[in-house]
Amino acid sequence: MAVYTRIPAEEMADIIAHFGVGELVSAKGIAEGVSNSNWLIETRGTGTSGRFILTVYEERTDVRDLPFFLNLLDHLAAAGCPVPRTIHDETGAPFRTIDTANGERKLALIEFLPGVSADDPTPEQAHAIGRALASVHLAGRDFSMTRKDGMGFEAWRGFVRDCAGRWSEIDPALEAVPAYVDSVIAAWPADLPQSTIHADLFPDNVLLVGDEVSGLIDFYFACTGAMAYDLAVTHAAWSFSADGRVQSHAIGDALIAGYRSVRELEPIEIAALPALAGAGSLRFLLTRAYDWLYTPADALVTKKDPMAFFRRHEFYRENGAAAFGLSA
Amino acid sequence: MAVYTRIPAEEMADIIAHFGVGELVSAKGIAEGVSNSNWLIETRGTGTSGRFILTVYEERTDVRDLPFFLNLLDHLAAAGCPVPRTIHDETGAPFRTIDTANGERKLALIEFLPGVSADDPTPEQAHAIGRALASVHLAGRDFSMTRKDGMGFEAWRGFVRDCAGRWSEIDPALEAVPAYVDSVIAAWPADLPQSTIHADLFPDNVLLVGDEVSGLIDFYFACTGAMAYDLAVTHAAWSFSADGRVQSHAIGDALIAGYRSVRELEPIEIAALPALAGAGSLRFLLTRAYDWLYTPADALVTKKDPMAFFRRHEFYRENGAAAFGLSA
Repeated sequence: MAVYTRIPAEEMADIIAHFGVGELVSAKGIAEGVSNSNWLIETRGTGTSGRFILTVYEERTDVRDLPFFLNLLDHLAAAGCPVPRTIHDETGAPFRTIDTANGERKLALIEFLPGVSADDPTPEQAHAIGRALASVHLAGRDFSMTRKDGMGFEAWRGFVRDCAGRWSEIDPALEAVPAYVDSVIAAWPADLPQSTIHADLFPDNVLLVGDEVSGLIDFYFACTGAMAYDLAVTHAAWSFSADGRVQSHAIGDALIAGYRSVRELEPIEIAALPALAGAGSLRFLLTRAYDWLYTPADALVTKKDPMAFFRRHEFYRENGAAAFGLSA
Repeated sequence: MAVYTRIPAEEMADIIAHFGVGELVSAKGIAEGVSNSNWLIETRGTGTSGRFILTVYEERTDVRDLPFFLNLLDHLAAAGCPVPRTIHDETGAPFRTIDTANGERKLALIEFLPGVSADDPTPEQAHAIGRALASVHLAGRDFSMTRKDGMGFEAWRGFVRDCAGRWSEIDPALEAVPAYVDSVIAAWPADLPQSTIHADLFPDNVLLVGDEVSGLIDFYFACTGAMAYDLAVTHAAWSFSADGRVQSHAIGDALIAGYRSVRELEPIEIAALPALAGAGSLRFLLTRAYDWLYTPADALVTKKDPMAFFRRHEFYRENGAAAFGLSA
């Protein structure tokens, strides 16, 4: 929640001029994203005009991944998925480099999409989100680029090492986490159908207008991976109360039904969903626990409670297939 | 630079529905303002539709002043000044009350205006800013409400008391400030023409499209006061390098000339400008010094250098009328 990099208005006008979208008329720094700086940009005049999101990538983003993230948006938008297009500059490049007071930074201009994020979605909205996610998976299959999941097993083991001996600073129950990580990795289902997946489809990353999805955004964890894992992560993200104590079957079931109305799940995926949802809960528990222990007290971010995803993990572990309203 | 109050999307839609501006389609928290939470709102549908700024007033704003601030916008906009209108709710009220997790808050919906803030204005822009400020002063004369300057002599003396014994933590040169405050108050020119003034017209509070002023915003220091003081504050805010070391006569002179092209200054005002600009510099020095000493290290704001306005004060003190390219 911040704008880390300051860009004077005159320089902003020069930056926007490279994208052939008309003249800059407004730039508002927006309080979104924890790793990058974002502005809502308005232009008018010759050529395309309208509204855009300008993102300046700060040090936490590995800029070597930008071609994957930005070309993916174009690929999915061209296939009709509700994702914003990348605006390319006059040379055709999907991002540019600028010098700032903090050093060299990459930036990209991305189409603005209307919509608001739902904290408390309706089943109709969950159904629409399932459909949108399935459309991404179908279109993502023929995306030519690949990217390894930066939040995969290797990262999990790193978080376990970093948090070793400190779990009880958060909650003594978390002492079970290292064993949970071992068992989830050991039990990971083989041969799951792969595609390009979002891997972080939380409410903040879905824009809705009424009951329809107007945009899926923030693809900065997108990678090549198991489609059912992405669906399971989305299930964990959407179908619980914020503290993870109460599951909403109405939301979870609508999400799965919406997904299956666009892309039918294979039996192997259906069987794997409980384990994958537990794994997804563990992945977010691990990053939240790490941030909880290592984020400086004066950082401009709100720490998120790791226990909310520990409870989800335990829920999936205990309830298995009963957490999902579906049959093979 | 923050959004302090969290409003779920469903509640946001309910809030916006009271203003008769169509249905909410987008709400982006924006990183502007240090005391309040702001969102850029987009609506569509029946009635008026478009873009608006939603402001939730946090504890630093005295909500008893809201009728003054919000009705002033309507008064000035109706007179053709480049300021945003206040959107009134279905009952005609210029603000509403909501319950939030942080307690009860007032909120207002204000017209969105295009434009960007200039860090490094051109003389043409400075001329336009002078004209816009004069138009506010002319229209402000028949605004029916009044408000005492909350940053007047009484406040200055309070800051001097609060900073006593600690000036040298910032810079030993600031030991001179209490005497400067006494001499500025003693020498304050009597009988200056009054109107409703902005009193904080810094670059952040002026929106420009090309060389034209598209909006004067953030009237939360507006009050009843001397028009020449407002012009002098604007001169101090715009015609120096950020550190206060270098004055730009081209910018300062264009500002004054633009102002006089709309409202001619009286001889008493011209004579008073150097003293008033010194006083305005002192006012910002005092608030910055207070913030420097008393803002917690973990606050979500950037501290501004008090010395930048100490240097301006000394500049006006030493240069007198020569700081202004004008004659009576």
